Amino acid sequence: MTVDEQTRTEGPRSKRRRILDAAIDNFGGVGFEHTKWATIADEVGIGQTALYHYFESKVHCLLTIMSNELERSLERTRAVTAEVSEPDDKIRVAVAAAFDVTAREALQERILMSHQDLLVGERSSQREEAERQRARELVREIEHEWAALLKAGMDAGVFAKQDEVVLARLMLGLINGVWRWYRPKGAHTLAEISDQVVAACVRLVH
Amino acid sequence: MTVDEQTRTEGPRSKRRRILDAAIDNFGGVGFEHTKWATIADEVGIGQTALYHYFESKVHCLLTIMSNELERSLERTRAVTAEVSEPDDKIRVAVAAAFDVTAREALQERILMSHQDLLVGERSSQREEAERQRARELVREIEHEWAALLKAGMDAGVFAKQDEVVLARLMLGLINGVWRWYRPKGAHTLAEISDQVVAACVRLVH
Repeated sequence: MTVDEQTRTEGPRSKRRRILDAAIDNFGGVGFEHTKWATIADEVGIGQTALYHYFESKVHCLLTIMSNELERSLERTRAVTAEVSEPDDKIRVAVAAAFDVTAREALQERILMSHQDLLVGERSSQREEAERQRARELVREIEHEWAALLKAGMDAGVFAKQDEVVLARLMLGLINGVWRWYRPKGAHTLAEISDQVVAACVRLVH
Repeated sequence: MTVDEQTRTEGPRSKRRRILDAAIDNFGGVGFEHTKWATIADEVGIGQTALYHYFESKVHCLLTIMSNELERSLERTRAVTAEVSEPDDKIRVAVAAAFDVTAREALQERILMSHQDLLVGERSSQREEAERQRARELVREIEHEWAALLKAGMDAGVFAKQDEVVLARLMLGLINGVWRWYRPKGAHTLAEISDQVVAACVRLVH
């Protein structure tokens, strides 16, 4: 499918999607700091003025990538855990789903982990701040979702009793920390890592 | 003790130390991006030209804070684990030591976690790049140190056999992830968190 055909089929949203994809590949590849905004415009084949219509700054685009990835991951967790009923199975499928990602989603996770500091301080731009608030709200929802899974297992007498909010954060730290060091051509495949993380998380709850 | 007396007693190094302390308090408080280099100079009571003698940029100072904290934490791990002999005890004291920190060390850890992206891309400045290389080498040494503790426990038949390098990274992700969300006046004290993390890490190895 040519770019023109793609635009006709998917409508105007596809340009925004193509900007985001180009940004993910560049931020995740050479890094946010080293990515020129003009490179993104060139790759998508639009002018910088048109680019600013979609994202008012590189930071605005980065924050959007971060909250999109948080939303995708939250929805995925909810979908896979709804399909099983045992507390242990819910943890297993949730953790496995965290690593069952496309190459681009893996990059998004890496970008998300590398730029956590952006979520801390208030942004002076309104659109950046709105996206930062969205990301922060999603972080809270994700923590809440995992804490609820853990609490249900504790209440059912299957998991050892402990503070479920702290445990959820520790587990998410363990899972998300992988994106700091995982590289597609590294010594460990994502499937190997996934298996070991699933086993680790099952250990954590008992 | 006046500033002049301090300089006389501790020698010229103390000024570098005071710059680093002011930078830690500001980067950890209002954030790196929002800290003005001139504020650091003012707080230490030196001119910006003198400040540049110690650190050629805010990034150079930040990278120095990061590698200093990595070095402190590595030395601490080595010191406390050398004092006990059982594999479980080594893990317990190493994890507890990670949270037995001063308020400023806690800020350094938070700064370290928030700026991991700086360690990825090569710096064009020679002094920044030297500090980045030092930090990266320390990250490798820390992973190696923890993997060795885990391997020793596996070889002794005390810990369950698994890939010790991946496990070390997962454990460090779980431990260091705390600095993302821990706040001195938050719902959980560092002592409570420390106890739960020690218990979690003991679960991870068995």
